[in-house]
Amino acid sequence: MPDLSRLLRARSVTLIGASDNNPWCAMVARGLAAGGFEGPVHLVNARGNQALGRETVRSCTDLPEVDAAFIAVPAAAIGAAIEDMAAAGISHGVVVTSGFAELGGEGKRAEERLFGRAAELGVTLMGPNSLGFANLVDKVCLSAIPLRPALPSSGVALVSQSGATSAMLYSFAHQQGIGLTHSVALGNEAMIDLCDVVEFLLDDERVKAVAIFAESIRDAGRFRAIAERALKARKPIVVQKVGVGELTAAVAQAHTGALVGDDRVFQAACDAYGVMRASSIEDLIVTAGLLASTGPIDAEKGFALISASGGACEIAADGGELAGVPFPPFADATRDRLGEVISAYGATHNPFDITGAVMAKPEMYADAVRAIGMDGQFGLIGLITEVGESEAATSPASLGMIRATARGLADIDVPVVLIQQYLKPVSEFGRTVLAEHGLPALTGGLDHAMRALGRLWHWSRRVALPPPTATTATASSAELPRGERATLEFLSGHGVPVIPQRVVRTTHEAAAAAAEIGGSLALKILSPDIAHKTEVGGVALHVPPEEAGAAFERILASARTKCPDAEIQGALVSPMREEGVDLIVGVVRDPVWGLAIAVGLGGIWVELLKDSALRLLPVSRGEARDMLLSLKAAPLLTGYRGTPALDIDRIAEAIVGIGNAAIALGHGLEALEVNPLRVTAACPEALDALAVGRPS
Amino acid sequence: MPDLSRLLRARSVTLIGASDNNPWCAMVARGLAAGGFEGPVHLVNARGNQALGRETVRSCTDLPEVDAAFIAVPAAAIGAAIEDMAAAGISHGVVVTSGFAELGGEGKRAEERLFGRAAELGVTLMGPNSLGFANLVDKVCLSAIPLRPALPSSGVALVSQSGATSAMLYSFAHQQGIGLTHSVALGNEAMIDLCDVVEFLLDDERVKAVAIFAESIRDAGRFRAIAERALKARKPIVVQKVGVGELTAAVAQAHTGALVGDDRVFQAACDAYGVMRASSIEDLIVTAGLLASTGPIDAEKGFALISASGGACEIAADGGELAGVPFPPFADATRDRLGEVISAYGATHNPFDITGAVMAKPEMYADAVRAIGMDGQFGLIGLITEVGESEAATSPASLGMIRATARGLADIDVPVVLIQQYLKPVSEFGRTVLAEHGLPALTGGLDHAMRALGRLWHWSRRVALPPPTATTATASSAELPRGERATLEFLSGHGVPVIPQRVVRTTHEAAAAAAEIGGSLALKILSPDIAHKTEVGGVALHVPPEEAGAAFERILASARTKCPDAEIQGALVSPMREEGVDLIVGVVRDPVWGLAIAVGLGGIWVELLKDSALRLLPVSRGEARDMLLSLKAAPLLTGYRGTPALDIDRIAEAIVGIGNAAIALGHGLEALEVNPLRVTAACPEALDALAVGRPS
Repeated sequence: MPDLSRLLRARSVTLIGASDNNPWCAMVARGLAAGGFEGPVHLVNARGNQALGRETVRSCTDLPEVDAAFIAVPAAAIGAAIEDMAAAGISHGVVVTSGFAELGGEGKRAEERLFGRAAELGVTLMGPNSLGFANLVDKVCLSAIPLRPALPSSGVALVSQSGATSAMLYSFAHQQGIGLTHSVALGNEAMIDLCDVVEFLLDDERVKAVAIFAESIRDAGRFRAIAERALKARKPIVVQKVGVGELTAAVAQAHTGALVGDDRVFQAACDAYGVMRASSIEDLIVTAGLLASTGPIDAEKGFALISASGGACEIAADGGELAGVPFPPFADATRDRLGEVISAYGATHNPFDITGAVMAKPEMYADAVRAIGMDGQFGLIGLITEVGESEAATSPASLGMIRATARGLADIDVPVVLIQQYLKPVSEFGRTVLAEHGLPALTGGLDHAMRALGRLWHWSRRVALPPPTATTATASSAELPRGERATLEFLSGHGVPVIPQRVVRTTHEAAAAAAEIGGSLALKILSPDIAHKTEVGGVALHVPPEEAGAAFERILASARTKCPDAEIQGALVSPMREEGVDLIVGVVRDPVWGLAIAVGLGGIWVELLKDSALRLLPVSRGEARDMLLSLKAAPLLTGYRGTPALDIDRIAEAIVGIGNAAIALGHGLEALEVNPLRVTAACPEALDALAVGRPS
Repeated sequence: MPDLSRLLRARSVTLIGASDNNPWCAMVARGLAAGGFEGPVHLVNARGNQALGRETVRSCTDLPEVDAAFIAVPAAAIGAAIEDMAAAGISHGVVVTSGFAELGGEGKRAEERLFGRAAELGVTLMGPNSLGFANLVDKVCLSAIPLRPALPSSGVALVSQSGATSAMLYSFAHQQGIGLTHSVALGNEAMIDLCDVVEFLLDDERVKAVAIFAESIRDAGRFRAIAERALKARKPIVVQKVGVGELTAAVAQAHTGALVGDDRVFQAACDAYGVMRASSIEDLIVTAGLLASTGPIDAEKGFALISASGGACEIAADGGELAGVPFPPFADATRDRLGEVISAYGATHNPFDITGAVMAKPEMYADAVRAIGMDGQFGLIGLITEVGESEAATSPASLGMIRATARGLADIDVPVVLIQQYLKPVSEFGRTVLAEHGLPALTGGLDHAMRALGRLWHWSRRVALPPPTATTATASSAELPRGERATLEFLSGHGVPVIPQRVVRTTHEAAAAAAEIGGSLALKILSPDIAHKTEVGGVALHVPPEEAGAAFERILASARTKCPDAEIQGALVSPMREEGVDLIVGVVRDPVWGLAIAVGLGGIWVELLKDSALRLLPVSRGEARDMLLSLKAAPLLTGYRGTPALDIDRIAEAIVGIGNAAIALGHGLEALEVNPLRVTAACPEALDALAVGRPS
């Protein structure tokens, strides 16, 4: 991966294409100055004309050593600019010019040509079609977005594949009092992609959380690697990814020329590494802000909320139930203490309605915080807080509440989060007064805060577990098994229980195999040329052993009549299995994410109800268990209305084996399906299976 | 219902309990003045002490005629205040004092006593525990909530069962530039409830939409009546109802002493009348604001969005797909025109990325608006718009966009909505500049706007249809049928196809009936004392006619052995039916909402998957169709993988009949279940049914 410090921490820059007619360069020059850039800012103009009231040079070679360039020349002049940079030894830059891959066709080819040449010359470029970046912690804002003055850092770094959206995200974060460490607008990612930048950011200790606005993930392997890195570093990644619907896929392709992959597979990748999905600009920033502020919490413990508004308590309770925020009831001793705090008013539930009485007596907040902090069950305490734009615009009750909360907190070791009831700007006064009292920044509104808290619990649980096993895609792939029998044998070699089968070539062999297997039997013709055996009369079920020879003759005759050209090698004899729960286990290759495994109940369950679970391969037994238990139909496996509970661990092991078999088949595999994996009280068993190779 | 104009449009008021130690009265007095109240404000103090720097009187009887009182005396003095009001002929008031039903037990009894007495005296009171109301259009703010100065009315009226939440809703609406007509904080609803106030508001022509924050609906019949009134008046009602989760039910009960009903039944009630549900404070206000502004649109048509940000287009497309906002593709002629607008940049999808080129050339907005307006497919055009706090803080590009949009709109007859990309305050400058150009107020952020637009389409479709049939609960109820046979006969009398059954009392009768019916038969014992017939061996299936006599004797003997005390009247003989799709149709009585009908597939489908549809009774055939088609399992009815499509209309008729039968059973009915309603290609047919009476 490219080393981006020379670019993102540049100590000297040049603006290529600077002229009084070029708004980009003027914006960048203003941004550098406003952002406090301390190094030299050079200007290059091909004609040597004055620009921005200053002298320019005609070529980068006329400059002293420079770390990075901002390139704002017409598309036709990009090539020359790159050659000039290389000649001057400038190794990094941002290209703001648009009109490349986002137009498709010729634009895409031009981009490949120009940026391929840059790579040959050792020049690493962000863009094209990039609005640049603001490194606010190092005061390097090489950005064509007009940015409000930086706030004190909240530890949130922002990366966006959409330039205009990056501006919106910055503005919204600013409104909410969330100071970003970085804001990067990637553009077309011809050389520097999302993962390069996120990796750089994760390595910066001032970055506590990464917020991403993404249209498409181009390199799934890299994304998994950075997601794992973030997990190990206990730095949350929150992603708002568009292109969930079909319509957006078309719009996104038009916008940046990027293909949008299958969202369910992306979700599976996120699930594996604890990457969180946000559903809106507001959600993305509020979530990243909260998680950067708290870091992982003790997710075995619960959340308690205090508000003087019963309505807020109800909203929080509903929202928390939906988002997965645990609100355990208070311990009896805590209820007694809280009962004393609110005397006769209200009741001591969690969320805790401290009642309007607190307006006149803010010390109640301190007492409530202490009581809840000493309960022992809580990993985080939330308080609904309103702070105005100034001291005058803030009610004395609110200020009293802030002071009392700080006093209460001094006596306990549970962190707090302060939540605004609805989404409104966080004023400088608000930030300052909370900081003065040693309190964290305001979060919210309540609706977004509850979702963010749900993710905090989810992520904190995930961080406490080991990362997923690394993908072990075998370099040399096993040969693809052809047909049902070979596929089942291959699966058996990977520890998957498969139904016993005998190959029989004659009536005599059929009868002998039948006698040996005993019980009711199934016979199927064995032919590499016939996929749908039932339809050609090539299957006989519930055959008693003594009738096996006749059945063999009947199915062969039928298949020969119906498919006179097929090579028929004989038949497979296997025992008839009792009824059970039929699962489908399918491995498919996603064009972006590689092999993914899906588990669902057979037939209508998967098709009508989309009741399936999906994970990237490989899966551990624990993950396979989680997949099974996440199905709506899980009660059919765990016992329902007196049906016996099946052995989930053995089913999970079979799923792991199917996944490993798929991995072993390597790059040649397109899909592998076991249908059904029949599960009875006795065991899971693959009754039929098929492997499909990749189109070459 | 009480006439509330004397209260909500009071022209003279008195504050009872006015004293310098009483913060409520000071707040109300300030609010009246700030709100522009033009009538007299009297003060009553039991000791006649000065208050708020003014003289007081000891009794209301010392005052001239007064329309309404604000009562802020201790709980123990409420009774005397009411007597005093009545003696003075003051017929209306608000009681802010708390400590009544919200405490349960004694508080509830005291409330009933005091407000019962008020009713006897002809005094109508809002509250207790009410923070009062602000009638902003008539400048009567009898409210204990400090309110920001009223904005120009946006036609949104607000009613809240939670006082503190009502303050938050007001503040949020103010932040978003949405001027309310009214804001009412109901408190405990001892005499004046949600429906009384909503009915009053619907009758005010200045009210275009009603936003409700509700904890519980106390009178379901009234709620249905006002919902129908709103539907006929084409005024949208948007409700944020808490108490969806189990936890909140407990909190709500503590908060206002209100029981929280079953949310699914409430949803069914909302569905019937086009009442919309909002999920947060932000959602409630943004939705009500949008719908008050647009009124019903032509929902047969689609929505088009224009933005200079491709990211915003993608967010809108994803959000719209989720929320049900139709984004039809542009007609070819429109695409040609839009292609000219953006020349070589981007592509002409809907949502339409007008590209950053528009910054330099705002006239592109006018051209795009005209092109889309003339397409003919669009009922509303949205534009992503950002306006700052002042002209200086607003980019020239934004102002150019506003002017160009206004020019474009002048040439077409499609309305527009202007959407902020994220949720931020709407400045006075923003409101003014848009109004000057004849443009509607800003909506959004985009995330909330897309949900609001989804509801706009949904509601506009609903408004175009007739209201539901009125409930026809029969005054005198039919006698409850006892047992399967009687219930099926009763259903048959209401047009439900039921399986033919013969009652047989002897072996001879059984054989004769069997011969007459013919084919494979089912026999079941007939006994009012045995509910589970299979478990006592009282059922024989697949019986050939010639074995019917023997089967009759066998099941009677078995039942007599197992249940020696049961009265056994004989058996039922009916034809065995072929396999089909088994539906369950159940009518249940919700304690709040009355009879509701649920339809789902039998067994596991309903139990594990919660795959059922619910409506309040009565249902029309069209609604019954919608219920069936809304099931996840609907493809099993409409044809799936080669299975035949079943006759949905006949199934819907059977459901209507079951609903009518339940209504006819009237007040004595607790539940009526048809299980199964077997559906085959031939017909739907109730195979078994049971009616359960209400516990007396």
